[in-house]
Amino acid sequence: MLSRRPVARPSADLFELVEEPTPELADRQFMVRLLWIGTDVGPVSRLREEANYTPRIELGDVMPSNGVGQVVASRHPEVAAGRLFSGPFGWREHAVCDDVAGLFEVDPLRPPSAALGLLGLHGLAAYVGLLDIGAPAPGETVVVSAAGGATGLIVGQLAKIHSCRVVGIAGGAAKARRVVEEFGFDACVDYREPGLQAALMKACPDGVDIYFDAVGGEIQDAVVPLFNPFGRFVVCGRVALANLTSTRLDVGPRDHNAVLVKRLRKQGFLVYDHLDRRAAAHEALWRWHEEGRLSLPESVVEGFERLPEAFVGMLDGDNIGRRLVRVAEPNL
Amino acid sequence: MLSRRPVARPSADLFELVEEPTPELADRQFMVRLLWIGTDVGPVSRLREEANYTPRIELGDVMPSNGVGQVVASRHPEVAAGRLFSGPFGWREHAVCDDVAGLFEVDPLRPPSAALGLLGLHGLAAYVGLLDIGAPAPGETVVVSAAGGATGLIVGQLAKIHSCRVVGIAGGAAKARRVVEEFGFDACVDYREPGLQAALMKACPDGVDIYFDAVGGEIQDAVVPLFNPFGRFVVCGRVALANLTSTRLDVGPRDHNAVLVKRLRKQGFLVYDHLDRRAAAHEALWRWHEEGRLSLPESVVEGFERLPEAFVGMLDGDNIGRRLVRVAEPNL
Repeated sequence: MLSRRPVARPSADLFELVEEPTPELADRQFMVRLLWIGTDVGPVSRLREEANYTPRIELGDVMPSNGVGQVVASRHPEVAAGRLFSGPFGWREHAVCDDVAGLFEVDPLRPPSAALGLLGLHGLAAYVGLLDIGAPAPGETVVVSAAGGATGLIVGQLAKIHSCRVVGIAGGAAKARRVVEEFGFDACVDYREPGLQAALMKACPDGVDIYFDAVGGEIQDAVVPLFNPFGRFVVCGRVALANLTSTRLDVGPRDHNAVLVKRLRKQGFLVYDHLDRRAAAHEALWRWHEEGRLSLPESVVEGFERLPEAFVGMLDGDNIGRRLVRVAEPNL
Repeated sequence: MLSRRPVARPSADLFELVEEPTPELADRQFMVRLLWIGTDVGPVSRLREEANYTPRIELGDVMPSNGVGQVVASRHPEVAAGRLFSGPFGWREHAVCDDVAGLFEVDPLRPPSAALGLLGLHGLAAYVGLLDIGAPAPGETVVVSAAGGATGLIVGQLAKIHSCRVVGIAGGAAKARRVVEEFGFDACVDYREPGLQAALMKACPDGVDIYFDAVGGEIQDAVVPLFNPFGRFVVCGRVALANLTSTRLDVGPRDHNAVLVKRLRKQGFLVYDHLDRRAAAHEALWRWHEEGRLSLPESVVEGFERLPEAFVGMLDGDNIGRRLVRVAEPNL
């Protein structure tokens, strides 16, 4: 549970492990045992006091998170034990569910952890954000921030599949190198080095047509002047704001002039508004995966009690791809 | 001609009146006598040193501007004397033209000055920006900055025709009152009064669905937090930047968080990219005008030599609707 609020960047000691007795199931309830829990940037803003588009997490609340679980007990007539679901179970070892609404059945023929990555919200976000909203054309240049993150890695590979030039932005030389060498990006710029904009200009000799941005802040400021006319600025996240105590502190160059002069389209999206695209997206993503054109590495931390550490490490950007915590083995 | 560059806001003494001998027409050339010249915000950024999407105006250049002129002499086989054209003739009493490309024929059955307003680029900008890009739905709230300007007045009336609630932002109580009383806006807020955001909140009890922005800067900052989910932020201009010596000085709250959380679509446009919509737009605009649902007042300054004064007055926002200079009477 959350036991105090972050002052700036969240730390592992914000959380306490609490043991509770296993509840009795009421009629039509079922119990899921968590197998995998994902770590996400999403809830960071909800740790703060200020209101936002999703409710604040209260002190004492279970930390929200998506996971994959297996039904281990059921009084629901249509939910048999053994079935696998992904859903917003939170940081728990067991979750009691009233309904399958809000859960997604996990195909037992595919790796369960994929339901938290390529076949989860990250895959859907990359697919909708790049293809539906960004609408890349062959030969265009796509810049992806948080390029070593799960969504960024998928976006970059999707852009390559669509014959674009792909330039990542990532934190650290080693991560930037892996993005290029292992995932086929044409270039990747390390934002921790000075001269980000100059490095981007060199990596994008034909300018930027699509910027898929999960970060905001000063990284965004470096990309905006490089946009070509009719560029698309897809706003998917705001990792850079995770360190601020309030989004009101997010001050910098306004992009008004660039948006006007370059006739940019800047569009924010939340993956939850696009669940109707899930089936089509996941079918396409898995096909590309099976063709060997798309992959998402998983960095696995073993053990439920290590969730806070895995979460903070993910925020610190010390991994590539998806950071998952393995809580239990499935019962096959 | 332009004789020196502005330090901050342009002033009338930047310009000199220069007399030149009437040139001889070469084969296929024709000469237009200007009847009306419009004053526009557009060239303001081009007075500055910095490069932009249109070329800088050099010292000694004729100030660019759209006007309506009548052919008074022609060696072009297809252009007879007496015809009326609108086009980018600049601040001149006579203009020599090589071609009709880039000019628009003016319907002699409609008032020639309308070709610089409702049937000109302002009408087209309002039509494309609000209807094509903003895509208003009945009952939505539309906020329009520079509401007393030519484009703003048309946008507001178009939004009313499309059954929206329309809230203007204008400079000065008298102008704000006229926008409501004479042009049917539901409310109009005076940005020169303190508490702009509070006044907007009161005027927009259901939030903001479309913001048609010709201004940027602090006025934009006041509107952005009021957006409803899936709002459209149509970027049409940047009057607020006209006072800056460089657009690099345009610093303020970034709208990244709002764009993400509210899933906004922020889109810049230039009317010149949408000339293919001109015929459809002008047909619809004139029909609404004839039905008495759409009008655009003209504030007329008499005499070519008063162009600098009319231009600076327009930038100071001391008029409502279109500020035009009458240079000569047509020869009918």
